[in-house]
Amino acid sequence: MSELIATYLLHDEKNPDKKAEDIALGLTVGSWTKLPELEQNQLRKHKGRVVSIEGLPSEQENQTLIRIAYPTINFSSDLPAILTTVFGKLSLDGKIKLIDLQFDDLLKSQFPGPRFGIEGIRKKLNVYDRPLVMSIFKGVLGKDIHFLTEQLKEQALGGIDLVKDDEILFENEWTPFEKRIFNGKRVLQEAYEETGHRTLYAVNLTGRTYQLRDKARKAAEIGADVLLFNVFTYGFDVLQELREDEEIALPIMAHPSFSGAFTSSPIYGISHSLLLGKLLRYVGADFSLFPSPYGTVALEKDSAIAIASELTKQDIHKTSFPVPSAGIHPGLVPLLIKDFGMESVINAGGGVHGHPDGARGGGMAFRQAIDTILQGKLLAEGAEYYPELKKALQLWGNVEVAIS
Amino acid sequence: MSELIATYLLHDEKNPDKKAEDIALGLTVGSWTKLPELEQNQLRKHKGRVVSIEGLPSEQENQTLIRIAYPTINFSSDLPAILTTVFGKLSLDGKIKLIDLQFDDLLKSQFPGPRFGIEGIRKKLNVYDRPLVMSIFKGVLGKDIHFLTEQLKEQALGGIDLVKDDEILFENEWTPFEKRIFNGKRVLQEAYEETGHRTLYAVNLTGRTYQLRDKARKAAEIGADVLLFNVFTYGFDVLQELREDEEIALPIMAHPSFSGAFTSSPIYGISHSLLLGKLLRYVGADFSLFPSPYGTVALEKDSAIAIASELTKQDIHKTSFPVPSAGIHPGLVPLLIKDFGMESVINAGGGVHGHPDGARGGGMAFRQAIDTILQGKLLAEGAEYYPELKKALQLWGNVEVAIS
Repeated sequence: MSELIATYLLHDEKNPDKKAEDIALGLTVGSWTKLPELEQNQLRKHKGRVVSIEGLPSEQENQTLIRIAYPTINFSSDLPAILTTVFGKLSLDGKIKLIDLQFDDLLKSQFPGPRFGIEGIRKKLNVYDRPLVMSIFKGVLGKDIHFLTEQLKEQALGGIDLVKDDEILFENEWTPFEKRIFNGKRVLQEAYEETGHRTLYAVNLTGRTYQLRDKARKAAEIGADVLLFNVFTYGFDVLQELREDEEIALPIMAHPSFSGAFTSSPIYGISHSLLLGKLLRYVGADFSLFPSPYGTVALEKDSAIAIASELTKQDIHKTSFPVPSAGIHPGLVPLLIKDFGMESVINAGGGVHGHPDGARGGGMAFRQAIDTILQGKLLAEGAEYYPELKKALQLWGNVEVAIS
Repeated sequence: MSELIATYLLHDEKNPDKKAEDIALGLTVGSWTKLPELEQNQLRKHKGRVVSIEGLPSEQENQTLIRIAYPTINFSSDLPAILTTVFGKLSLDGKIKLIDLQFDDLLKSQFPGPRFGIEGIRKKLNVYDRPLVMSIFKGVLGKDIHFLTEQLKEQALGGIDLVKDDEILFENEWTPFEKRIFNGKRVLQEAYEETGHRTLYAVNLTGRTYQLRDKARKAAEIGADVLLFNVFTYGFDVLQELREDEEIALPIMAHPSFSGAFTSSPIYGISHSLLLGKLLRYVGADFSLFPSPYGTVALEKDSAIAIASELTKQDIHKTSFPVPSAGIHPGLVPLLIKDFGMESVINAGGGVHGHPDGARGGGMAFRQAIDTILQGKLLAEGAEYYPELKKALQLWGNVEVAIS
């Protein structure tokens, strides 16, 4: 029988055995022992079951991990149905957090996974041997298209691989969606002709849900590179719809905007690795942004690495790029590579734009830092050759770590 | 200048003044004091501002309420854009909870509100002078259409006004969506001919996001009464899309499934009254279900009443029915009417089906309890006349309260 296994963390639960049994029945057939045998036989294939109940070590003695198996016959193969089943009513039922969902291969295969994935993105960029570098537009509200394209070009000339829109840039009269794509494409082509380096621009796909598909198709038609998407203000299934549309067929970059409303509490909601890792990969995000463990808006390192692991581990779906974000400057490159490895995107805002030589210098400093580390040298050594890296380290400092 | 004012609760914030200023700038123009005057003039209409900073009384001395005004020119008039602006990145930024959003009338008018609202639903039922009574199918997974329609009819014969699908009933071979509507309609017509009482059936609208509209249009075409919708596993904007579609034009009942992932923490996420009250009403839910303050899956009474207040207070939009749910039996009717008033739906599962005379007796007991209270009598007095009410009180007890 095909099952989906959910792992929950309980706090202060006095009778976890009963709670687990109540969930397994309450979210499936309702009751069991009182049913006549005939009905039991009829309903057996729909009945949930308790897989395990595990107390956590003594310093967390008020915590219990329980695992419940739900027959997949109970729901349709879409995340709204799955989330309603495993954490619908249950999300309202006391101190309980959804930690993980274990899909079997049959159920997993009902989800598309990324269309491009890490390999496909690398192919677009023709970059295979280093982490990618991404940067973010800065201060774009109320600015005109000239301001945006100049900023885009500066970042591209610095050797940045991906530039993403600010996620709070919506449809507006000054820099409308199609104009951003069109003009962005032009200046990135100019930069390419100047440097031979290809930069992709992730344009923010926004607006009403039922217009997104046509808008995204139009974006593809006029040559957009990547779609940035605030998935958590829309829903996982909307991202999946965009991923599956053959007329769109663009890489999708999932922004973690609003996701903190689900993930921040240690007691309630959903784990970071499930929300920003596994499920985003299943529905088809090619990139997942999440708070880095280094900045002021920080995630604990364990959680950040758990997200990256879900995005990149062996599975039936393609891998997605982890993009640890916020508080990143060139001096952190050794730490980023140590923690997130080659299959990641190094993403910076202030760490690019705040460089003494501007965004171009900032981009160069990141690329120089990566080259230095991948040559097995210390950043301080690289700074002797690279003036942009030297200025970055003088401004922000550096953390030298051994890369194993 | 048109503004949206967000209220946030901060925990353990040492410098709320700075934090508030950082939010007001960081989520709008980025920076301010360093900008040249020319640029300040250009960006002034996009700049956020701190409206107030308020420490809470001494027993919550580590808590601060801050209010930030965002110019509405910064975003498009849809909830994904609004939530990304006011609680996108910010949701990831420490101990912060979104408590309220204050829309001005212009922005508010961009949202549809309920198509029918309390008045429209009452008109459909021709019931104006009492709270409505709703019940829920029980144990439906793996059962056939005959089982469902029999259960539906029993509830209708008991005088129930609305019967809702179990929210975990998805598309399935035994009781497919259209068959449920079609057969449900038939037995409700039979019950109407027998009793003269009209019952509406809320069918669970499920499946992939971009198929929902056609599915809902089809439902309307074949005569569905009400759509039940697990809005929080899809997104507010999807509900709004369904509300606005003129070919659907059916009442929408929002289920709180999955909403606990947002609302349960006192420190993170979103307040109950905003999520399950104000925003559901704005996007167009005719009914909002939420945990009652009485059952095992309970909400504090203040939060439950705050939700109901947002749904029913005077505003430019129609009112929505509050549906406090879980743990409801006929003995709680006096308390329900005291706490939620006439403009509410009394909703029960076990309190209907668990009646010694079955769902029909359960429905009757609820209606009898309401009649008794509205005649200014005690339930114990009503039980002298009504045998079904008497049996219910014997089984579940009763809470007699003075109705002011």
